[in-house]
Amino acid sequence: MAREVQSEPDSMLKIRDVISIRDFSREQIENLLELADDMEQVFHSGSDILRGKILATLFMEPSTRTRLSFTTAMYKLGGKTIGFDSPEMSSVAKGENLSDTIRVVENYCDVIVLRHRMEGAARLAAEYSDVPVINAGSGAEEHPTQALLDLYTIKKELERIDGLKIALLGDLKYGRTVHSLSYALALFDTSLIFISPEGLGMRWEVTHDLKNMGVKVEEFKDLQKVISDIDVLYVTRIQRERFPDPTEYEKLKGSYQINLEVLKNAKPSLIVMHPLPRIDEIAPEVDGTPHAKYFKQPYYGVLVRMAILKSLLT
Amino acid sequence: MAREVQSEPDSMLKIRDVISIRDFSREQIENLLELADDMEQVFHSGSDILRGKILATLFMEPSTRTRLSFTTAMYKLGGKTIGFDSPEMSSVAKGENLSDTIRVVENYCDVIVLRHRMEGAARLAAEYSDVPVINAGSGAEEHPTQALLDLYTIKKELERIDGLKIALLGDLKYGRTVHSLSYALALFDTSLIFISPEGLGMRWEVTHDLKNMGVKVEEFKDLQKVISDIDVLYVTRIQRERFPDPTEYEKLKGSYQINLEVLKNAKPSLIVMHPLPRIDEIAPEVDGTPHAKYFKQPYYGVLVRMAILKSLLT
Amino acid sequence: MAREVQSEPDSMLKIRDVISIRDFSREQIENLLELADDMEQVFHSGSDILRGKILATLFMEPSTRTRLSFTTAMYKLGGKTIGFDSPEMSSVAKGENLSDTIRVVENYCDVIVLRHRMEGAARLAAEYSDVPVINAGSGAEEHPTQALLDLYTIKKELERIDGLKIALLGDLKYGRTVHSLSYALALFDTSLIFISPEGLGMRWEVTHDLKNMGVKVEEFKDLQKVISDIDVLYVTRIQRERFPDPTEYEKLKGSYQINLEVLKNAKPSLIVMHPLPRIDEIAPEVDGTPHAKYFKQPYYGVLVRMAILKSLLT
Repeated sequence: MAREVQSEPDSMLKIRDVISIRDFSREQIENLLELADDMEQVFHSGSDILRGKILATLFMEPSTRTRLSFTTAMYKLGGKTIGFDSPEMSSVAKGENLSDTIRVVENYCDVIVLRHRMEGAARLAAEYSDVPVINAGSGAEEHPTQALLDLYTIKKELERIDGLKIALLGDLKYGRTVHSLSYALALFDTSLIFISPEGLGMRWEVTHDLKNMGVKVEEFKDLQKVISDIDVLYVTRIQRERFPDPTEYEKLKGSYQINLEVLKNAKPSLIVMHPLPRIDEIAPEVDGTPHAKYFKQPYYGVLVRMAILKSLLT
Repeated sequence: MAREVQSEPDSMLKIRDVISIRDFSREQIENLLELADDMEQVFHSGSDILRGKILATLFMEPSTRTRLSFTTAMYKLGGKTIGFDSPEMSSVAKGENLSDTIRVVENYCDVIVLRHRMEGAARLAAEYSDVPVINAGSGAEEHPTQALLDLYTIKKELERIDGLKIALLGDLKYGRTVHSLSYALALFDTSLIFISPEGLGMRWEVTHDLKNMGVKVEEFKDLQKVISDIDVLYVTRIQRERFPDPTEYEKLKGSYQINLEVLKNAKPSLIVMHPLPRIDEIAPEVDGTPHAKYFKQPYYGVLVRMAILKSLLT
Repeated sequence: MAREVQSEPDSMLKIRDVISIRDFSREQIENLLELADDMEQVFHSGSDILRGKILATLFMEPSTRTRLSFTTAMYKLGGKTIGFDSPEMSSVAKGENLSDTIRVVENYCDVIVLRHRMEGAARLAAEYSDVPVINAGSGAEEHPTQALLDLYTIKKELERIDGLKIALLGDLKYGRTVHSLSYALALFDTSLIFISPEGLGMRWEVTHDLKNMGVKVEEFKDLQKVISDIDVLYVTRIQRERFPDPTEYEKLKGSYQINLEVLKNAKPSLIVMHPLPRIDEIAPEVDGTPHAKYFKQPYYGVLVRMAILKSLLT
């Protein structure tokens, strides 16, 4: 269970687990995104690269898209999957510790994908596991594979990441997606704009870290001030249950809903992204515009996850 | 997302989705049932016809047999499956629209099987999906693959469909199976007899449509009047919860239970079918008789679903 | 559905179903454990031995490890799996009889693994099924594949089963694992020691059977009396809900918790086993000792289940 830390220079690009986007160097990310390019052909032709390998998807919190995305990625590479999709189905419901669950399941598989409501859960799992662990969301903190697919979407749709002005809009306090994505973007030459309602602003420690990393960060309450200036608009869900007063939610909701009127002054090349599921943060009328990339993100997600699985297992 | 409608003459037999049995011509159905015959050998030998293809089973309502049947069909053809089997497991629980779910999942798969509690759900899904959609039950209205397997069972067990007298018994108002099956039988030269308790009779609009299609339809309250005359007895479940008064249910239950006494005057060749699960509509004493075909229907169902998948994906 | 009983001498070693460990002879068990040895290489290389075969996992009670273990075993042999992992997902929730469920599902698969809360459920299923049935736990009575993997663990870790002194500790009344294991050990030349709190002692009929089979059985309340003398310590969970008085539970809990202090006088070669999940019956400080084998049991479990599946299906 104790791990050999790989220390040869050659292995610096090699990843052992995918726990936090903060464990990655820019070079490691660029390598993964290039590998994702190679996966496009494999996606369509299928392959036997991971034949005989088994992925375990341990979802202690429900998630359709992330679980299905990893399963499809594994299938396209010729592997198989086992797993469960809610804790009630599992021995976790009988009170088992995560570390015990991991030490059992590692006997059944070659790689583990874990979603857990606790921050730090994936790192704990990786410490106990002899097989690689991929964090598919832990608490409000981290969702590294989403950050990687978001980066990949930007790179594919705008042909670069450096030099872009990227706005993150919505609940920046509790959305784990925006935390991981911000740290990922900080490794590139980007300028970040945070737009959120009062009380749902980006966590202080994230902003602090980003500035220390040399990123230009601005905060706004109103999207209209910057809409004509940005290259990427990353929209997240504002959860009603975060507001103590429902009328407050109803009042704010409208200010953070993207529709054709809001996009009137946007650059023609602006891309609108969303980690999904969306509720009403983006009006359906936007779906048909060239701005909308949120239904292409799931496709890029499979390619990125194929790249991660291939990288970890070959 | 917008679909090219295939219009060349050659493609008239080709199906693009399986939404409603009413979209099928008699010739298309006959082609599918012939293809099901070919699947018998593939069922036993296995094959790689759909190697690398992925089926997504999206069950927003629980169903063992239909989900397992499609999964087995896909496996026998060499394909793989992803999916979920209850809405609580999915982003649907977070309030996502069906159209969004479809536009995400289509990135993960080559064909979608959908069960949904709302009438019209499968057709909506097909409009948004770039991959074929198969309706595995939507509301009380449609269950086209069940109708096709029912037809196939009749054809295999009685060697024809034309010329038969077929009785549908039980809850004909809410049972989606009997609606789809009636429309399917209407394409053949059959005579239909509906037998149901007061208040659970066949929907008026279905009877109306059938008569317009030239089918001979009769309605009875009592099976004994016709038992000696029919070739197929199709039994469905009467759900206790449909009755406002439980004593009414208890009173009626017996009149619609099939046992050896009830079958005393039946033709020796009569086949008894049931979409299953049964509760007590058919007494266990019937299981061992040559009439009972309800445990052969699941086998025919796999063959028919193999034929559908092959037809949609090759 | 009626079964041909195989009666030729050659088939005496051949198993048709795995319902109760009491159906096995010592020779049949030894054959299976030898086959498990052969599976070690297949586990690592993968194989196509069961290519095209389908295993149905019908779990009417939740279980992570057993379901995942069988799934992995099937994958390693090249087969596929279908199934469900809670009765709410299934037609069982609509009131279907087990015998009907089995007669449907047997059409979809080549072998069935069943977990059910009722004693006798697996045997009933085997009577109705045309395909082999494996009992993955029925009521408090039987869990034969767990018993086989426990035997295999002992054999692999201590290089023999005959001549060993084996203590079973904890709730011996309700734990189905210890019942099946005791009967399995009774086929070997072992001496059994039962250690349990008042009211949770081994069932009278089991002890009676074991003595009739010629096994030396002793019962103790205190592990310390025998700790220096035993070769295997098999620990099971004591469920809080078995005690009418919670203070009684808290008082007892400590006496049946294994820690370094408890193991101070143990033989160096003593192995500690547990069917898992554990709650606090074994302190984490034991995990790193050479005594601890409970995280190796899941690995041996896959090998044993591979051997069972191969034996039933080839």
